[in-house]
Amino acid sequence: MTDQTALFEYLLRLGDNTLVLGHRVSEWCGHAPVLEEDIALANTALDLIGQTQMWLGLAGEVEGSGRSADDLAMHRDVWDFRNLLLVEQPNGDFGQTLMRQCLFDAFHLELLTDLTRASDDRIAAIAAKALKEVTYHLDRSSETVIGLGDGTEESHRRMQAALDLLWPYVGEMFTPDAVDDAMLAAGIAPDLKALRARFDTRIDAILTEATLTKPDSTYAQSGGKTGFRHSEHLGHMLTQMQWLQRAYPGAAW
Amino acid sequence: MTDQTALFEYLLRLGDNTLVLGHRVSEWCGHAPVLEEDIALANTALDLIGQTQMWLGLAGEVEGSGRSADDLAMHRDVWDFRNLLLVEQPNGDFGQTLMRQCLFDAFHLELLTDLTRASDDRIAAIAAKALKEVTYHLDRSSETVIGLGDGTEESHRRMQAALDLLWPYVGEMFTPDAVDDAMLAAGIAPDLKALRARFDTRIDAILTEATLTKPDSTYAQSGGKTGFRHSEHLGHMLTQMQWLQRAYPGAAW
Repeated sequence: MTDQTALFEYLLRLGDNTLVLGHRVSEWCGHAPVLEEDIALANTALDLIGQTQMWLGLAGEVEGSGRSADDLAMHRDVWDFRNLLLVEQPNGDFGQTLMRQCLFDAFHLELLTDLTRASDDRIAAIAAKALKEVTYHLDRSSETVIGLGDGTEESHRRMQAALDLLWPYVGEMFTPDAVDDAMLAAGIAPDLKALRARFDTRIDAILTEATLTKPDSTYAQSGGKTGFRHSEHLGHMLTQMQWLQRAYPGAAW
Repeated sequence: MTDQTALFEYLLRLGDNTLVLGHRVSEWCGHAPVLEEDIALANTALDLIGQTQMWLGLAGEVEGSGRSADDLAMHRDVWDFRNLLLVEQPNGDFGQTLMRQCLFDAFHLELLTDLTRASDDRIAAIAAKALKEVTYHLDRSSETVIGLGDGTEESHRRMQAALDLLWPYVGEMFTPDAVDDAMLAAGIAPDLKALRARFDTRIDAILTEATLTKPDSTYAQSGGKTGFRHSEHLGHMLTQMQWLQRAYPGAAW
């Protein structure tokens, strides 16, 4: 019998990752350097928000207190969010946004692949649907990282700076805690050590082709997925994201 | 007998100017280039928020619907705000913040001077109290504008850019509408044409000493004090300013 509290927490992690990253990516809407990229980013954001609807919808069901996906997205405060620190980091320039996306996509794709075999059918079904979208996300983000990394002197410099900036947020994705352990024991979540090996293989290949140097440091920021300590950026993002439902509770159209 | 609706609107203008500028200035807290300026800006913000408490408190009394100053500050939406467009403009660099402050202070000082003779004793009393603080604000902001304008090549360039950027927001302060006319007729508000002449004399002297060139254009943005069209910056500011009372209505400490 799966621990329902741990399952709820785990589903929040999945849904908060896609919610927060989806919102971040949506901030580019109307601002990307070329029209095609603008539309591609908007589509990525929409995919992620769609996945959020499914993960947080299931989280609300598992919780059993009558909270909908919208309630969970719009009426929780910063300390209740369970997303990785990586996805709440600011967009920076276009290259930094795509580096963040590529690092997350590589993790996300491997994770969803394993979740399609989860012992919980509801989770396996959502993962299978999301996996198709995320396969495309990684194609796109990795190609952009390669194109800009192995591009001009300026674009290379920026991509290396983005990688150096974001690398300390990679470790958190693979650092297991009690929730991860419970989900592994329940046959739902994968072993994060094995996942990391596949992630490394994938990312190493991308970075090599992009002529970028993976930082030596293995230092990892933590506190996002446990909710213990989010970066200051998340609170500011929530004031904007949640504004409408905070000012007009229950507003619908 | 004074038109109470017009009086309420007029008090919102006075209170929203100090509220919005006070919040903007408070955004510098912990970020100013030197400690003394940081503290001076924090004090200016506190003065302005104190004045807001008085103006919006009186506005709530005049309205007679039981709304407190806090209610008016925290539970209105962007279209209900009546502040000048000038004060909602972003801080930019330190010089731009002080240029905005100086332009507003010069207007504010002349306005409050006249309001101390208002036919409404409550308004005259608030104006007299605020005038002492604003006299000091203008001393400080005008000295900084002069020091930076007549400073290095870089500081001069930045101050001229700030003046050029903000000048189109000056005209709104002196463009009368029905509310201004009603307050003039009631013996409360001054004639804005006469006020402009005194403002010009004051600002011309400051800009000359600062070796800055007043823009030729007389084009004036409008829509702030009437609430018809605020700039996009105000909504973003309110999401942050009102966050706590929106997420936790009625929270107190």
